[in-house]
Amino acid sequence: MPTISQRGKVMPPSPIRKLVPFAEAAKKKGVKVYHLNIGQPDIETPKQILDAVRHSDFKILEYSHSAGNESYRRKLVEYYKRFDIAVNHNQIIVTTGGSEAILFAFMACLDPGDEIIVPEPFYANYNGFAVEAEVKIKTITANISTGFALPAMEDFEKAITPRTKAILICNPNNPTGYLYSKEEMEVLKTLCLKHNLYLFSDEAYREFCYSGKHFSAANLEGMDNNVILMDTISKRYSACGGRIGAFVTKNQEVLDATMKFAQARLSPPSFAQIAGEAAVDLPADYFDGIKAEYQSRRDLLVKMLNEIPGVFCPNPGGAFYAMAQLPIDDSDKFCQWILEHFQYEGQTVMMAPATGFYATAGLGLNEVRLAYVLNLEDIRSAMISLAEALKVYPGRTAIK
Amino acid sequence: MPTISQRGKVMPPSPIRKLVPFAEAAKKKGVKVYHLNIGQPDIETPKQILDAVRHSDFKILEYSHSAGNESYRRKLVEYYKRFDIAVNHNQIIVTTGGSEAILFAFMACLDPGDEIIVPEPFYANYNGFAVEAEVKIKTITANISTGFALPAMEDFEKAITPRTKAILICNPNNPTGYLYSKEEMEVLKTLCLKHNLYLFSDEAYREFCYSGKHFSAANLEGMDNNVILMDTISKRYSACGGRIGAFVTKNQEVLDATMKFAQARLSPPSFAQIAGEAAVDLPADYFDGIKAEYQSRRDLLVKMLNEIPGVFCPNPGGAFYAMAQLPIDDSDKFCQWILEHFQYEGQTVMMAPATGFYATAGLGLNEVRLAYVLNLEDIRSAMISLAEALKVYPGRTAIK
Repeated sequence: MPTISQRGKVMPPSPIRKLVPFAEAAKKKGVKVYHLNIGQPDIETPKQILDAVRHSDFKILEYSHSAGNESYRRKLVEYYKRFDIAVNHNQIIVTTGGSEAILFAFMACLDPGDEIIVPEPFYANYNGFAVEAEVKIKTITANISTGFALPAMEDFEKAITPRTKAILICNPNNPTGYLYSKEEMEVLKTLCLKHNLYLFSDEAYREFCYSGKHFSAANLEGMDNNVILMDTISKRYSACGGRIGAFVTKNQEVLDATMKFAQARLSPPSFAQIAGEAAVDLPADYFDGIKAEYQSRRDLLVKMLNEIPGVFCPNPGGAFYAMAQLPIDDSDKFCQWILEHFQYEGQTVMMAPATGFYATAGLGLNEVRLAYVLNLEDIRSAMISLAEALKVYPGRTAIK
Repeated sequence: MPTISQRGKVMPPSPIRKLVPFAEAAKKKGVKVYHLNIGQPDIETPKQILDAVRHSDFKILEYSHSAGNESYRRKLVEYYKRFDIAVNHNQIIVTTGGSEAILFAFMACLDPGDEIIVPEPFYANYNGFAVEAEVKIKTITANISTGFALPAMEDFEKAITPRTKAILICNPNNPTGYLYSKEEMEVLKTLCLKHNLYLFSDEAYREFCYSGKHFSAANLEGMDNNVILMDTISKRYSACGGRIGAFVTKNQEVLDATMKFAQARLSPPSFAQIAGEAAVDLPADYFDGIKAEYQSRRDLLVKMLNEIPGVFCPNPGGAFYAMAQLPIDDSDKFCQWILEHFQYEGQTVMMAPATGFYATAGLGLNEVRLAYVLNLEDIRSAMISLAEALKVYPGRTAIK
């Protein structure tokens, strides 16, 4: 029997999905499980964009241009203009989800053994793409006590080696919800220019900012050759299943290399490009309602968390995630236990153990990530269950 | 300015698409260009499967299961059963096109520096995925004089090294149209079992067989742990833009590793999974009409090619490609010249130079690939233009 690859062996399983069997078992017992574990919004996909697909009347489901339909890329130019991001349609490559934009950035800019610095905790799937591209993720630690603000410049400087090729951020951040300030973005610019690094900026949650304004990496002056935006329609329009994202840069050499990777996989999905194109024409106030909804969820979640004895949750500025410190011994054990051995009035909660978002062993043991993708009533019920669970969890630790 | 990666530099541009600017220039001059260069069928996508998407009535475009919707995978089990391929739904991972199935196979089974043996000429994009995965494609040469039959077992044996992990075939073949016989498949089985190799079998064109019956790698007995099918709905249902394929194997270890890669990119596109699922329910005679159409195109194309003095085109058994030997000095030059400097009654032809399908330098210089994805009338006109072009091409060589 032939052996599998080393990378197939070291590839980490999804930390978000590994508890699924326990959630399924709980449901089979009749327990209601509140899913705060995964960033699948419950918000309906705008009818206009689904209808655009439903009313499409082509006869052949053809390959699109490898960079995506030109009409869609021109629409995206309009979209970015709203954020004062001046790009033309040839500086945009439509990708199969934000996932492929990440993979393309790693492939086009780094070689095996090269290093990317990422503040931890970080989106766990970056690990997966790093394994595929045979590049190394080196983390510097952000702390819950500062709400996961950007680590100090010295921490970055210490981590930089001759193999460092890029800094990768997610802004606003998944999993912490932290929204980087203009000043923090300027720190990253200084670092990238000084050390000749790419700045990979995953801005999947650009619109979802509640405290403060989003400052895009693409708005950093003098960084045209360094910045690569990794974007997606998934969260923005609750269109995760479309698998449409974008790779955006003004660096022509990177664009040329990336186009070759894009050509090898032929084209991004055609149906969802129609949806993405229609999305740019949504009414200007589309996000107002969505943002108000998420903000009230955040406010309720954070308030209820901080009311539980021994729990601390910094107020996240954006996205739809919060990281909470709990009085527990081990978040993996706790998140499994609450599904396997706990229920309160027939209900329990599924959360993501924070350990999966840290590369440094031992970190995140008393933290969990909660995605506030449920309505207010469900969030309230979930927080009541969590509070009750913490009262009886056998691995509860003393409150510091 | 940060430098791009070495793999970004060595990544080959698409040999099929590099002539696009010359075709566009010809069209701007008012010349009609017959596109025989690319495998985008002109056959209409079955209305039933487009309607399945158009009539979908979900409210949230959610992530699907990372392996694809279970309902679709269960439908695919039915589909494979029609070819006596007995797999269950957990042995199928729905991919983003056949492209992703290829990438997953390379990633899950090979490490950087490992080798795959591929008979040349071969589908050029295998190169791209090899560059991404940092694996090496080693070719052994199939010859136009045998119609591109499988090279002799000794040729494979000579190419096998301690780093060889897999043999990769496309059956029926792109670009040659060759349909491997059961006996040839048995040769591959012998080789794989003797040397403990994977057999990657790209069966994108499984249904399109005109001379002889398709024998799937999945029907080779005793090869459950060796065989990986790389599949796609693109050509089968003229649904190239859907970007839905499948990775199929009974090797549990490979499935487990591949699922981790699948989870990292979250899910395959949702809309086209609906189309794919509906496709399995197309009437049993769906392919009869399509096959008859392709066969008459093949018959006309091959006949007209062989009637041109100095041209030789073996009769391809399947797919919708033919490779023709022309009395020319250099197929790259010729395919550019015919777009740039030639027209016959306001018409010309776009073809793919065969050099892009060979890894061995110097091969394919007098061969072109023609995709018979146009109707009979267009094929006739295209062949007339080609015959005229060969009369006046300055780089014409003596007829052997």
